[in-house]
Amino acid sequence: MKIVIVGGVAGGASAAARARRLSEDAEIIVLERGEYVSFANCGLPYHIGGVIPERQSLILKTPQDFKTRFNIDVRVRHEVLAIDPEQKSVTVKNLTTGENYTETWDRLLLSTGAAPIVPPLPGLNETGVFSLRSINDMDAIIAWIKQHDVSHATLVGGGFIGLEVMEALTERGMSVTLLEMGNQVMAPVDPEMASALHQEIRNHGVDLRLKTALKQVTRDVAGLSVELSSGEKLRTGMVLLAIGVKPESRLATDAGIATGERGGIRVNAQMQTSVPGIYAVGDAVETQDLVFQSPTLIPLAGPANRQGRIAADNMLMNRGSTYRGSQGTAICKVFSLSIGSCGANEKQLAARGRRYEKVYVHSADHASYYPGAAMISLKLLFDPQNGTILGAQASGQNGVDKRIDVLAVAQRAGMKVADLEHLELTYAPPFNSARDVVNQAGMVATNVLFGDTAICHASDIQQLDPATQCLLDIRNPGELTQFGEYPNALSIPLDTLRENLGRLPKDKEILIGCQSGLRGHVAYRILTAQGFRARNLSGGFKTWQAVLQATE
Amino acid sequence: MKIVIVGGVAGGASAAARARRLSEDAEIIVLERGEYVSFANCGLPYHIGGVIPERQSLILKTPQDFKTRFNIDVRVRHEVLAIDPEQKSVTVKNLTTGENYTETWDRLLLSTGAAPIVPPLPGLNETGVFSLRSINDMDAIIAWIKQHDVSHATLVGGGFIGLEVMEALTERGMSVTLLEMGNQVMAPVDPEMASALHQEIRNHGVDLRLKTALKQVTRDVAGLSVELSSGEKLRTGMVLLAIGVKPESRLATDAGIATGERGGIRVNAQMQTSVPGIYAVGDAVETQDLVFQSPTLIPLAGPANRQGRIAADNMLMNRGSTYRGSQGTAICKVFSLSIGSCGANEKQLAARGRRYEKVYVHSADHASYYPGAAMISLKLLFDPQNGTILGAQASGQNGVDKRIDVLAVAQRAGMKVADLEHLELTYAPPFNSARDVVNQAGMVATNVLFGDTAICHASDIQQLDPATQCLLDIRNPGELTQFGEYPNALSIPLDTLRENLGRLPKDKEILIGCQSGLRGHVAYRILTAQGFRARNLSGGFKTWQAVLQATE
Repeated sequence: MKIVIVGGVAGGASAAARARRLSEDAEIIVLERGEYVSFANCGLPYHIGGVIPERQSLILKTPQDFKTRFNIDVRVRHEVLAIDPEQKSVTVKNLTTGENYTETWDRLLLSTGAAPIVPPLPGLNETGVFSLRSINDMDAIIAWIKQHDVSHATLVGGGFIGLEVMEALTERGMSVTLLEMGNQVMAPVDPEMASALHQEIRNHGVDLRLKTALKQVTRDVAGLSVELSSGEKLRTGMVLLAIGVKPESRLATDAGIATGERGGIRVNAQMQTSVPGIYAVGDAVETQDLVFQSPTLIPLAGPANRQGRIAADNMLMNRGSTYRGSQGTAICKVFSLSIGSCGANEKQLAARGRRYEKVYVHSADHASYYPGAAMISLKLLFDPQNGTILGAQASGQNGVDKRIDVLAVAQRAGMKVADLEHLELTYAPPFNSARDVVNQAGMVATNVLFGDTAICHASDIQQLDPATQCLLDIRNPGELTQFGEYPNALSIPLDTLRENLGRLPKDKEILIGCQSGLRGHVAYRILTAQGFRARNLSGGFKTWQAVLQATE
Repeated sequence: MKIVIVGGVAGGASAAARARRLSEDAEIIVLERGEYVSFANCGLPYHIGGVIPERQSLILKTPQDFKTRFNIDVRVRHEVLAIDPEQKSVTVKNLTTGENYTETWDRLLLSTGAAPIVPPLPGLNETGVFSLRSINDMDAIIAWIKQHDVSHATLVGGGFIGLEVMEALTERGMSVTLLEMGNQVMAPVDPEMASALHQEIRNHGVDLRLKTALKQVTRDVAGLSVELSSGEKLRTGMVLLAIGVKPESRLATDAGIATGERGGIRVNAQMQTSVPGIYAVGDAVETQDLVFQSPTLIPLAGPANRQGRIAADNMLMNRGSTYRGSQGTAICKVFSLSIGSCGANEKQLAARGRRYEKVYVHSADHASYYPGAAMISLKLLFDPQNGTILGAQASGQNGVDKRIDVLAVAQRAGMKVADLEHLELTYAPPFNSARDVVNQAGMVATNVLFGDTAICHASDIQQLDPATQCLLDIRNPGELTQFGEYPNALSIPLDTLRENLGRLPKDKEILIGCQSGLRGHVAYRILTAQGFRARNLSGGFKTWQAVLQATE
């Protein structure tokens, strides 16, 4: 069995190693266009920032390592130009010698990755304009910064790479302008969840410009400038394009391999393409979305590694290894804030017309009486009829990764929101509360599901009809002063509510607002027991403010 | 509906609040023997240590808070002396006035907790001998330390309380002797997993004495002394008994309520006792163990809180809320180490004759090239025939809570070990590796399950028969020098194994040892492909050393 693997990072490298572990006899060749295999591409921003001081530590394995450890023939600077599915061969160009040659295969694996999207704008070919995908890109950026003593960088795009490089350059002492065409950075979360992130970014002195696109890059004797969709023109020392990536599927399409609507190579759960004997993995492929059960692009390292392993299993033996779909579980550290998500977000659910409800919980990451506790804000999206977990988003200083992981496992296991309160999670004061924020979110969602509570959202407050509805703020006077007020709310602190029911209109629906959504439920129960119609604002004033900030 | 709750901490407090949220009409009375309700008993050690500076922050809610917020009648220093199930009443003693009175109920909830075990040893009534269960205990300990300027404390028992107080007193600058009768502290994990903890404890200057019991406490003019099972006698400034707790079930048994073999009140999944109308929750009850499906005692705050909520549901309405069994998920911070577990441990599995296999993984908590990465050691116990997750244990500096949580959710969801490699967990270099340690453990266990690898354990190396077996160390010479050698091992570094197969005996079983167990699998595949019989030592030299230390 001769296996040829195109692309030696993440999925390709992991497939190669797994293939060897499954078979000592297989001939395994890895053809990598770049100079490095199996490098830590997720670490590139951090070396630019200096957090990872040693460049060498990003190079996980050399071709020689693959040879001695796994008896795998890794050829760097070898680009595959074409695939011949009939002849079961590839045409390869040795980029060092310029020679072309043919390599045959019994099984071919495409791990060609994704390329940075470069929009058709004037000036993007100027020197000083970069993308960041490879060690070479990273080296070039660092060299440019040093050589030109760059003090200001313009980053285009507020996705993972844009955010991580923003942090890196800021921590290097550079000033940064971050351009984002949309109304939020970090697209996997919803706008109101991104609000905290926008604040964190601006608190660190970054010039964040939302709803602002790059129009062109120009160079004059004084250097580079960027022109923005606002009409403004900024002097800058460098430009990094981090708008996103698109699957590198040209090789595949040229060979008649089917691609999907999103441009990724189409594969089944065994990672087989439409052409027998040819497999594909990683950023180049479309996989099944766990929530929507439709093809999606998930250009992340974890799925790529898993897919590589599965492809190796299926190339070498028929053992039924299957990829079980993607949740898009992801996280990003931005200064002292972490923000992560899994499953579908509200934007996607709404766009697809999927039935959903959402609850917000704001709670300390560990026992509030133990030092260092910080708030986690969690948004849980679920099916209001059957309790299916659709997605989760969280932000906070600590423990965001843990909560998203817990919810990602629960979602993958097919647990319902009513199962979440029963999760038995590690508890000691330094780590958690006896009732974890995930347990709490589960309780709130279950209360909604069982009709023990009725909730409303910021949009309901914004669209409140004074003729039929009344907004009741149950916070203490001190909180109103400290945090701000809801618009046109009647103020009755919760602890005096039972004595003040007479002040409430019996004929109107009462929308209850508290600070985080927790006490509002108590008020809801008091009111409805007395015959009032009521709904509690999920997430309270904290979510209300985040929504306001997101729609500014 | 009149609900009387005996005991106002954890389960009792949570039941009371939930009951009110479910019903505005119910009369709810909480009778608490102590001076405080709803206090943070898990925080007590940390206030002793000074990490939690404010005593007040441990008092979560006052009786007045319960009154104003929830209209609940909380009576502290009211001890229930007897239950009359026929008359549906309790006899209560007001500890302040000395008066007795009778309180009737429609539903009674027992949240009586558990009391520290005090062994029948001479001298335990001396002043300066303490337990730690209540705010009063804590106050007394702190006062004693200050008053007598205590410089040395003797702690008896290496469970959660013993370990937390050990840390607290050490961080206060006191010297500590920790006595543990067994061969390990932190009973929920197995001895080889406790090895790292023993080392951490000793590294911090604690005089840890395993297999050492307290024989008696004596007092002379110079002060307190402890006499040990070793015959040794130590001067000490105070003694803390932290041997464990036993359910406070006397009230229940006196009233004819059934208890279980372990002395806890017997309840069904609705938290109902054997007597209609009487419910029980928390440390006082026996619940179903999720692995063994038999009654167990889990004196932890998380389960108590959940049970309180469930009891309230069932006292007030028949909505089918059930407690779904306990995994005993737990964690402890000991200086810079965290150690946690869920499900069954090997000691329990072996004692009950349950079929099991175990794998060990040692892996960085996040990308090793990103600063601050530290090793997590994970032990996964599973059914070798069907892959059921039986239990997990982990230790490390960071991220132990996350891994145990992930595995606790997977176990509760009924996932198998073959599902673990498919978990899609948050990944970015500061948080994780693209392949999380849980994914890795899942892969290793699945390899075992599918016969892709065969593993052995330290006991196999210890009982190695040179006539039929050969131990092969595949680490590099530098590692042997740095970490130490296996006994009587043939040394062939992995990267030269293919060329050196001739040096291996064809007729013997090869036991392969590497540093962490990962490379050994590669060697295993090379050897078995060439017709050798082989097994790989799970966890490698790291686990080997931990086992040696545990059996010293």
